[in-house]
Amino acid sequence: MKLLLAAALTVTMAASMAPAQTTPQTAPPAVIEDFRPSSLNQPGQSYPQVNSQGYARFRITAPDAKAVKVSLGLGGRGGTVLTKGPDGSWTGTSEGPLDEGFHYYHLTVDGGTFNDPGTLNFYGSTRWESGIEIPAHDADFYALKDVPHGRVEQILFPSPSTGTSRRAFVYTPPGYDRNTRDRYPVLYLQHGWGEDETAWSNQGHANLIMDNLIAAGKTRPFLIVMTYGMTNTIRPGAPGGLASFDIRPFQTVLLDELIPYVDGHYRTLSDQRHRAMAGLSMGGFETKLIAPRHLDRFAYIGLLSGGTMSPEDVKVTPGYRDKVKLTFVSFGSRELEGGRSGPPGGPRSDPRANAAALTAAGIRNVFYVSEGTGHEFQTWRRSLQAMAPLLFRD
Amino acid sequence: MKLLLAAALTVTMAASMAPAQTTPQTAPPAVIEDFRPSSLNQPGQSYPQVNSQGYARFRITAPDAKAVKVSLGLGGRGGTVLTKGPDGSWTGTSEGPLDEGFHYYHLTVDGGTFNDPGTLNFYGSTRWESGIEIPAHDADFYALKDVPHGRVEQILFPSPSTGTSRRAFVYTPPGYDRNTRDRYPVLYLQHGWGEDETAWSNQGHANLIMDNLIAAGKTRPFLIVMTYGMTNTIRPGAPGGLASFDIRPFQTVLLDELIPYVDGHYRTLSDQRHRAMAGLSMGGFETKLIAPRHLDRFAYIGLLSGGTMSPEDVKVTPGYRDKVKLTFVSFGSRELEGGRSGPPGGPRSDPRANAAALTAAGIRNVFYVSEGTGHEFQTWRRSLQAMAPLLFRD
Repeated sequence: MKLLLAAALTVTMAASMAPAQTTPQTAPPAVIEDFRPSSLNQPGQSYPQVNSQGYARFRITAPDAKAVKVSLGLGGRGGTVLTKGPDGSWTGTSEGPLDEGFHYYHLTVDGGTFNDPGTLNFYGSTRWESGIEIPAHDADFYALKDVPHGRVEQILFPSPSTGTSRRAFVYTPPGYDRNTRDRYPVLYLQHGWGEDETAWSNQGHANLIMDNLIAAGKTRPFLIVMTYGMTNTIRPGAPGGLASFDIRPFQTVLLDELIPYVDGHYRTLSDQRHRAMAGLSMGGFETKLIAPRHLDRFAYIGLLSGGTMSPEDVKVTPGYRDKVKLTFVSFGSRELEGGRSGPPGGPRSDPRANAAALTAAGIRNVFYVSEGTGHEFQTWRRSLQAMAPLLFRD
Repeated sequence: MKLLLAAALTVTMAASMAPAQTTPQTAPPAVIEDFRPSSLNQPGQSYPQVNSQGYARFRITAPDAKAVKVSLGLGGRGGTVLTKGPDGSWTGTSEGPLDEGFHYYHLTVDGGTFNDPGTLNFYGSTRWESGIEIPAHDADFYALKDVPHGRVEQILFPSPSTGTSRRAFVYTPPGYDRNTRDRYPVLYLQHGWGEDETAWSNQGHANLIMDNLIAAGKTRPFLIVMTYGMTNTIRPGAPGGLASFDIRPFQTVLLDELIPYVDGHYRTLSDQRHRAMAGLSMGGFETKLIAPRHLDRFAYIGLLSGGTMSPEDVKVTPGYRDKVKLTFVSFGSRELEGGRSGPPGGPRSDPRANAAALTAAGIRNVFYVSEGTGHEFQTWRRSLQAMAPLLFRD
């Protein structure tokens, strides 16, 4: 099982490091000139821009530069090459429409890696990167709306095992402050490789997704706890990198330090059936390494583009059938092209087949696919929206 | 009074836009080669570095660039010019030691403005800028220590006057979650021009300053509420920019929307004598424009590098003497060189003289000077540390 996991990790993390790309098209549609600033631009910045088709247009001021490139674009050219205009600014448009949702990117200016000064930054690929948002047809579910809003609370919890105070963010639903007799279930939600504890609320909009679901009466209110999964100590692709990954340091932080702190400082329901763990990409693999081995603690398991749960996995895990109330597995449809859970060369384990086999074996599970998206945050936003209403219903 | 305020604002904001600089010295000390990564570097990044004397050393990879400059350094050269090494990286050391504490900066690469990919970014000058921390002799008071920690909670509160949900951060002290019968005073704390609601907790470490003061028994625990002061709608220096600044939109958000929301969702002491308002630089001027005219709401007033309170100001404010329990005014010593509250050419109002006159007139006030710092966050960290213990003692 260890080897299988390692193989799957390689694939998932390689995908997470690849720049966001669309499937190359033989004839991209003609560009419609209705470009508007991306919603993630810094205040007052007019570039980058996006149009109604999903094209992105970039403009960078660097009058004395020799070459400026954007890491985002179509696969064939490794990004979008900008060209210099008479005013000294560099401009370029993606060769085709980009997938809906959030994309990380960066610039290469005369051989150096920099962020686009026009946009906000988001932590990914072990550094703060530029972000752009391609308006999605279903963007309403994570929009800031006139509904009651929960909070995102930064806590600093003591961690004797790592010798410091560690940071986590806790989403508390609307009403938590006033319903002082109520206690709440908790979802521990992990980011992917290269990211950190800021990802799910910054680029994931986990708080707005929950606010909107709760306002619509579609989910039970619960807390979400997001902390750094200590994922970035390994360098995927480096020899021996993956083999050296050890889940134990993070498992200690999570099980022995963070969970007791949260249960001690929030009005939680602290029994097994009111605690869930889920994660995206490498956070999904962490979930799979920790939760099934601690079924006295977790009743719900979510793997978002982070591997699958097979009948064999269940078989080797005592009590899985009775204790796990739901196994949620999701992918972006682009990740499944070819019927696999990753890009070509990935593991031979078909997540749809695994889900069907679990169902046939009477194991409660849901398999969700985000249409038209890949190993990116739009897949995970949708996955959270799909998963949240299924949690803590037993 | 309006004209006087406008003149003072011009000076304060001009200072806030100027790059951080040390006073030029005729003979900077010889550089000691004990450079270490700045504490604000991104994970794993070894540059920029700082040494024990306060020199900063920068290294940027941009092999094909023609010129790379850092906006931080000594005044005469407008920053630190980097030189290219044989490996294609650009390196340079500040010409002299920089002031203790936090500095904003950015790069100029072939005529374009970019952030240093080595550091974290902080919102200042209306954009996310690079930050560097020169270790201060008194850094302990805002260090992350093994003491009980409060929270920094992001709230989204409804704002009918601006037609959206607005963001604020609320510091809640350790114990707030457990002492469910206790109610707390509130300080409304404003950032400066070019900054936003993230400044006081990110670069200001307001939460850690409070955690440490509370752990030492030096201050009464209270809440701090930080929201965007709508300061950046004006462009200081632009013709008519300052004259067009209107405090009313922010005053409406603060008084009619945010304060009622906080009093409705937190266990506050909501009477006048348990509410304070303070701000740095332009946030101080906002405080002076709002609080004295609403003494039914505020009992404590703090101006941090943001103007002074004169006997004339008090005279034209009915009830000031009785209702204002404390007026706190602070500056960095570099701001006072020449005995003025700003750089040469600034207003003729001497803050020390004003403070002495208030004292002579029996108006309770404290005048605080941060030694060896200018119009920068080290001054304001120290000011908060000095002010907090004086609040809510009546």
